[in-house]
Amino acid sequence: MSFEIPTSEDVVDALIAKPGKSFDLKDRPTRNEDLFADKHVARASTEEDAHAINTLQDTLFAEGKQALLVILQGIDTAGKSGTIKSVFSVTSPLGLNVTAFKKPTGLELEHDYLWRVHKAAPRKGFIGIFDRSHYEDVLVVKVRELADKDTIKRRYDQINAFEKHLTENGTRILKFMLHISKDTQAERLRSRLEEPHKRWKFNPGDLADRELWDDFMDAYETMVEKCSTDHAPWYVVPSDSKSRRNAMIARIIRGTLEEMAPEYPDPGWKSEDYNF
Amino acid sequence: MSFEIPTSEDVVDALIAKPGKSFDLKDRPTRNEDLFADKHVARASTEEDAHAINTLQDTLFAEGKQALLVILQGIDTAGKSGTIKSVFSVTSPLGLNVTAFKKPTGLELEHDYLWRVHKAAPRKGFIGIFDRSHYEDVLVVKVRELADKDTIKRRYDQINAFEKHLTENGTRILKFMLHISKDTQAERLRSRLEEPHKRWKFNPGDLADRELWDDFMDAYETMVEKCSTDHAPWYVVPSDSKSRRNAMIARIIRGTLEEMAPEYPDPGWKSEDYNF
Repeated sequence: MSFEIPTSEDVVDALIAKPGKSFDLKDRPTRNEDLFADKHVARASTEEDAHAINTLQDTLFAEGKQALLVILQGIDTAGKSGTIKSVFSVTSPLGLNVTAFKKPTGLELEHDYLWRVHKAAPRKGFIGIFDRSHYEDVLVVKVRELADKDTIKRRYDQINAFEKHLTENGTRILKFMLHISKDTQAERLRSRLEEPHKRWKFNPGDLADRELWDDFMDAYETMVEKCSTDHAPWYVVPSDSKSRRNAMIARIIRGTLEEMAPEYPDPGWKSEDYNF
Repeated sequence: MSFEIPTSEDVVDALIAKPGKSFDLKDRPTRNEDLFADKHVARASTEEDAHAINTLQDTLFAEGKQALLVILQGIDTAGKSGTIKSVFSVTSPLGLNVTAFKKPTGLELEHDYLWRVHKAAPRKGFIGIFDRSHYEDVLVVKVRELADKDTIKRRYDQINAFEKHLTENGTRILKFMLHISKDTQAERLRSRLEEPHKRWKFNPGDLADRELWDDFMDAYETMVEKCSTDHAPWYVVPSDSKSRRNAMIARIIRGTLEEMAPEYPDPGWKSEDYNF
């Protein structure tokens, strides 16, 4: 049992869905203790990465040339909010923007499904976080048959083209599927019912989705296979353990920001040129 | 010399510009060590309040009925960004939204000056922070004569009516004028020139504004006098000391959120009603 912290490359290798390969969700565990054997190490690592992410974000903001978009997808209770709270716990709110995509409004439905998404894309210098995203349009929309099959089939390529467009125009994209077991969901739904501070999160409608568990998993599998691309691969994150989920995601986000290597601009002002 | 932490009421009393009274900016110090004599106590107090603000914000978000709007105004280097970074250092980004108002775009100028502001108003459950605001329309616009005098004169009442509207519809408003001395600005501008990580913030245009210091202070004075209302009073924060500025603002924000008294909703679900 190793207590060392894995590199972000280790985590990438363990979680990535290789672009262009077939993908089977059954091969992906919902719990993985290989990378972070010890919970306390996972928590300490997340905290350290959160501080590093804050520093990198400051530089990204000052530089004002690139953006990072973090997309979080997962079934109810998979931990999208919890991930945001812990990984971005100390990031300055100045250059951070969270968009929670809910059921589309009437106005949104009068446009194509990427319209509201494009509007929420992070501006240069920002980290944008999507809590759900355009992927709902090939997940719940598919499972609930809210659009016809041909329409949905065309969306995978449309999404890939859209994400390629964003990438080519200065936005790095990270996509995390938070992967939990059906038992873990039952546990978490029960705790939403039992704990007074969580009760507001419970929605009987979530149980209807739970009954369609297998259909949702099939839709996730197709989504990952079709939309894991070189410019924006999917990472499938074992998320039954919250501390390890946070630690793995924080490692990848920090590593990506380090790769983006933002720099403080030097506009060339010289103090001797100014007198005041 | 007391090391006790002042109550938020103490801070409110010390900083408020009383609605309906004449207001003289010269009576307001840019440094005040009465409330927080010791810097370290000020820092510890800010940190504790930041955690309390995070907890209150969680409840506000769960409740989803009220919003808080924090407006920060101040001359260049007064510390608007620094305040946001320290007071909201640990607030979950899920229910927080910062809007930095810059020079209006062409589209924004095609609308009345409150159009872009109203669009950025926080949604229910959120804390919205304005880094600059509609008050620029009676500050820089007045000093630089970007609108005619009668137009500007009418704006104070329009702004009061707009803020009353927001307040009556569930948004509590807090307005902080960060008040620094001309010497402090010189020091901070110099450090922007000298420190490589701050150089990107320096803008030679700021020096042109600095030459109009007295005109800006007159405009601030009028703004505070005319727009400190019962529903949305101005707080004039001595801001030469960053640690004390943060501590005073954090006290007032925490106190206000406590007054708003958000509560976790209880939708009445009972765990025995659900089986899964």
